[in-house]
Amino acid sequence: MQILDPWSIAYVEDYNRLIEVFGIDVITEDILKQLPFLNRYFRRKIVFGHRDFQLIVNAVKNNKEYAIMSGIKPSSTYHLGSKITAEQIIYLQQLSSKARVFYAIADIEAWEDNGIPFDKSIEYAVDNVADLITLGLDLKRAYIYLQTKESRVLRWGYFFARGLSRNLLESIYGEKHLGMYMTAMVQVGDILLPQHPDFGGPKPTIVPVGVDQDPHIRLTRDLARKYSGKFKFIPPASVYHKLQWSLKGPGYKMSKRDPMSCLTLSDTPEDAYLKIKNAFTGGRETAELQRKLGGKPEICAVYQLALYHMEDDRKVRQIYEECKRGLRLCGECKHEIAEIFVKFLKDYQHKKKSNMEKARKIIEDITAKY
Amino acid sequence: MQILDPWSIAYVEDYNRLIEVFGIDVITEDILKQLPFLNRYFRRKIVFGHRDFQLIVNAVKNNKEYAIMSGIKPSSTYHLGSKITAEQIIYLQQLSSKARVFYAIADIEAWEDNGIPFDKSIEYAVDNVADLITLGLDLKRAYIYLQTKESRVLRWGYFFARGLSRNLLESIYGEKHLGMYMTAMVQVGDILLPQHPDFGGPKPTIVPVGVDQDPHIRLTRDLARKYSGKFKFIPPASVYHKLQWSLKGPGYKMSKRDPMSCLTLSDTPEDAYLKIKNAFTGGRETAELQRKLGGKPEICAVYQLALYHMEDDRKVRQIYEECKRGLRLCGECKHEIAEIFVKFLKDYQHKKKSNMEKARKIIEDITAKY
Repeated sequence: MQILDPWSIAYVEDYNRLIEVFGIDVITEDILKQLPFLNRYFRRKIVFGHRDFQLIVNAVKNNKEYAIMSGIKPSSTYHLGSKITAEQIIYLQQLSSKARVFYAIADIEAWEDNGIPFDKSIEYAVDNVADLITLGLDLKRAYIYLQTKESRVLRWGYFFARGLSRNLLESIYGEKHLGMYMTAMVQVGDILLPQHPDFGGPKPTIVPVGVDQDPHIRLTRDLARKYSGKFKFIPPASVYHKLQWSLKGPGYKMSKRDPMSCLTLSDTPEDAYLKIKNAFTGGRETAELQRKLGGKPEICAVYQLALYHMEDDRKVRQIYEECKRGLRLCGECKHEIAEIFVKFLKDYQHKKKSNMEKARKIIEDITAKY
Repeated sequence: MQILDPWSIAYVEDYNRLIEVFGIDVITEDILKQLPFLNRYFRRKIVFGHRDFQLIVNAVKNNKEYAIMSGIKPSSTYHLGSKITAEQIIYLQQLSSKARVFYAIADIEAWEDNGIPFDKSIEYAVDNVADLITLGLDLKRAYIYLQTKESRVLRWGYFFARGLSRNLLESIYGEKHLGMYMTAMVQVGDILLPQHPDFGGPKPTIVPVGVDQDPHIRLTRDLARKYSGKFKFIPPASVYHKLQWSLKGPGYKMSKRDPMSCLTLSDTPEDAYLKIKNAFTGGRETAELQRKLGGKPEICAVYQLALYHMEDDRKVRQIYEECKRGLRLCGECKHEIAEIFVKFLKDYQHKKKSNMEKARKIIEDITAKY
């Protein structure tokens, strides 16, 4: 029996299409070998594409300043998708002492998209920042802000909107309400903020995102070029990770609108266990068939959980191989992975509790500014 | 010969249509007689319509707080249209010691509409504010700000945009670029700023505008109602004045794109004289016919100049009557009115010069805030 690459997952052809159609570059071995170390998302090809990542690699190698830009819509607690982005941010920060993180609490987006008033975003913002700290952000090299309290971003949102036609916006975002288009412009302001004169002007900036966020990146890069005469912007670079599926399996995106399909970092260990036990797997119709043909980890939401979030490469490879060889049945596998995840969650939540006050202080300091 | 009302002007049927179609109320004698005094725009029915003006009249009578909200796009010097609005502001401020003026320097609009970068608006802003002071604004009861430096307005622009559909925006403004719609939202923020909690919350607010600005007023009133639960907004009131024509005569709006047709407060006396001498009049084909039939002041740009800007009621009435009776020919009339205007301009510009430093200080204090 041929054992395939354990780091491969299904639907990769969709990602190939994105690469072809939108001109995203593939992350090659040639790039990876220039980095001092790799986190598991890079090791396992979950981060698969980029634009201009070489600029950041060069900054790391030459010990030059660069920025990592990201953010969160404070409309709920971190789920596993938010965790992926956060861990990318932290990894990119750890690559060099010259790296600085800019992290936007997107309270304007939470309002436009979810109707959460600005003053109600605060609690989620505290929780989100506590997660970011717990996952390992170095606060000494991070600028965390609320969009509504960051006048430079508010102003730039208006600035970059000049002359953008309805056709352009609809081609990027589809037909949306005005508030959503304005949110997109604020996001352009966010992504370029590290290059604002107040922060030392032009510098390489990397935005780690799920591949569904590429439209924002393309628009921002276009606008960075449009106003390069005035601001000398360097078009922001990006790295793209594959999306975490819902626990329903491939084809579904993890979303809090369907709680049973979505693991969050705030789930009780009991809920998390139950969700994983009920997840979609790549198992065969019967145990007999499974022993004979092996399972299909490439379409298994539980295997994906291990692939994305279990640190030990050997363990993940073992799960994959045992599954493919028919040595592992879904029931026991789900139990094993659920137990590991529950243990992680307990430790994590304990650690996070001790970071809540620090996070609250950060958000209170921001809101006290006005 | 029947002498018509000297305060009437042509095309009044268009204003009647506006009143019918958009539900603007007519300013009646019943309203006017409640006011302690009238400026010439009210006396001469140049201010002809309103929404909820009675709220302001009540505030004046009961010695209650109210706000006057207006602004200027800092893309050029004051022309006669800007003067009309400014004098309305100042009149409404003089009506009561409880009145407070909010004046927006619309640098976002100057950027979106005219491509003037934020940092280039400053010189026009200084000049515009010097005009406002020279025309009589009481600075002690005025809050002057730049849109890009007023975070509350920037934030509210995003806030009020939530859920506004393309259809709604196109029906109000026509198909525009994103930046222009965003400008409109900033303007909503401007108009509601006097009712921001930081300025003491809900209060009657009056916006004196040219009747072409009514779409902004209607949208703002709708949004004030939509968010009345949260902010207790009182829908802003408005008064509408008829537009000053271009010197080309009725049907043309005074615009700086056609300098010879547009009188500004910065024109040299020589230029101003020349422009008036070349203006469109309501004269007959020949002097003979004029003496026989009388002129047509109702379509005369020079008569309108007197009607809108000459303080002395008796003098304006005299011009009107002499013209109608054929006792006044266009050449001598233009010379007389041009001379009066030139004298005004000389005095005005002398006075304004002494206010430039004060205006510069105001704008510098604002821009130094960030």
